[in-house]
Amino acid sequence: MSEPLKLHHVGIVVQELEEAIERYCLLGLKETERGIVEKFDVAVSMIPAGNVKLELMQPLGEGNVQKFLEKRGEGLHHLAFEVKNIEATLAALKSQGVQLIDEVPRPGFGGHRVAFLHPMSFSGLLVELVEAED
Amino acid sequence: MSEPLKLHHVGIVVQELEEAIERYCLLGLKETERGIVEKFDVAVSMIPAGNVKLELMQPLGEGNVQKFLEKRGEGLHHLAFEVKNIEATLAALKSQGVQLIDEVPRPGFGGHRVAFLHPMSFSGLLVELVEAED
Repeated sequence: MSEPLKLHHVGIVVQELEEAIERYCLLGLKETERGIVEKFDVAVSMIPAGNVKLELMQPLGEGNVQKFLEKRGEGLHHLAFEVKNIEATLAALKSQGVQLIDEVPRPGFGGHRVAFLHPMSFSGLLVELVEAED
Repeated sequence: MSEPLKLHHVGIVVQELEEAIERYCLLGLKETERGIVEKFDVAVSMIPAGNVKLELMQPLGEGNVQKFLEKRGEGLHHLAFEVKNIEATLAALKSQGVQLIDEVPRPGFGGHRVAFLHPMSFSGLLVELVEAED
C-alpha cells in the first residue's frame, strides 16, 4: 500500500453504554450517533474526538465482543482504518501474507462495508478496514 | 470541560519495535519519530495515521508497560487527548470525581508534559492527557 491509511475510529468495549457515555462527557466528548450492528451483536455509540471517532460497543449477545468482555474486561478493542476499495485492499494485503479474519467484507456501523485483519499479522493489534469516502 | 478533547495518539504495546514497524508498513504507515521515554522505561516509535499518531511502545525495563505486556500481551494500551493547560484540566477533572494516576504532570515523548487518568473513571479506558499546541 503506497498511501498511508488514515485512522477512522477506535473501537472500545464497554459493559454499559449509558454509563460509559456519561463518563466520557467529563472529557467534553459527546455522542453523535447510536445504532445496533447485528452482524457483530453490539449496540454502538459514536463519539467524535477531533478527526477520529470513538466507537463504544456494548455486547448484546454471545458474539466475539461479549467473549472479549468476559476474557479481558472493558477497554480498547480495535483500530479501524479508512480504505477506498475494500476488496482491492484485502487482496493486496493477502498477497503480502497478511492473515484475514474476513475474506469478504461484511456490513458494519453506518452502512459501511468492513473487514477485520488478524492481530497476529500486526503485533497484537486487531485491525478493521472501513470502506469510506474522504 | 466544555470543548471536546481531540485525540492526540493511540498507545500500543509491542514486544519488538522493528518487527511491529515492518508489519505496520503493510498498511502504508511509516515511522516519523523515534525516542526513549525514561520516566516510562520505553522505546517509542511515532507513526502518523491521518491526523492521529500511533505510539508504539517497547518496554525496556521492569516498568508498568512491561507489566502490561506480561499480563495482557501485545496490543492497545491507552488513548491520549490533547489539552492546552494540563494543570487546569487535571484540577477540573479531579473536582468532578475523576481518579488521577498522576496528580502532577510528568515528561512524556517529544518533550510534552503528560498525565494519566485512572481507567476506573472511564469504563476501563486508560486515558492520557498531553499538553500540546494545536
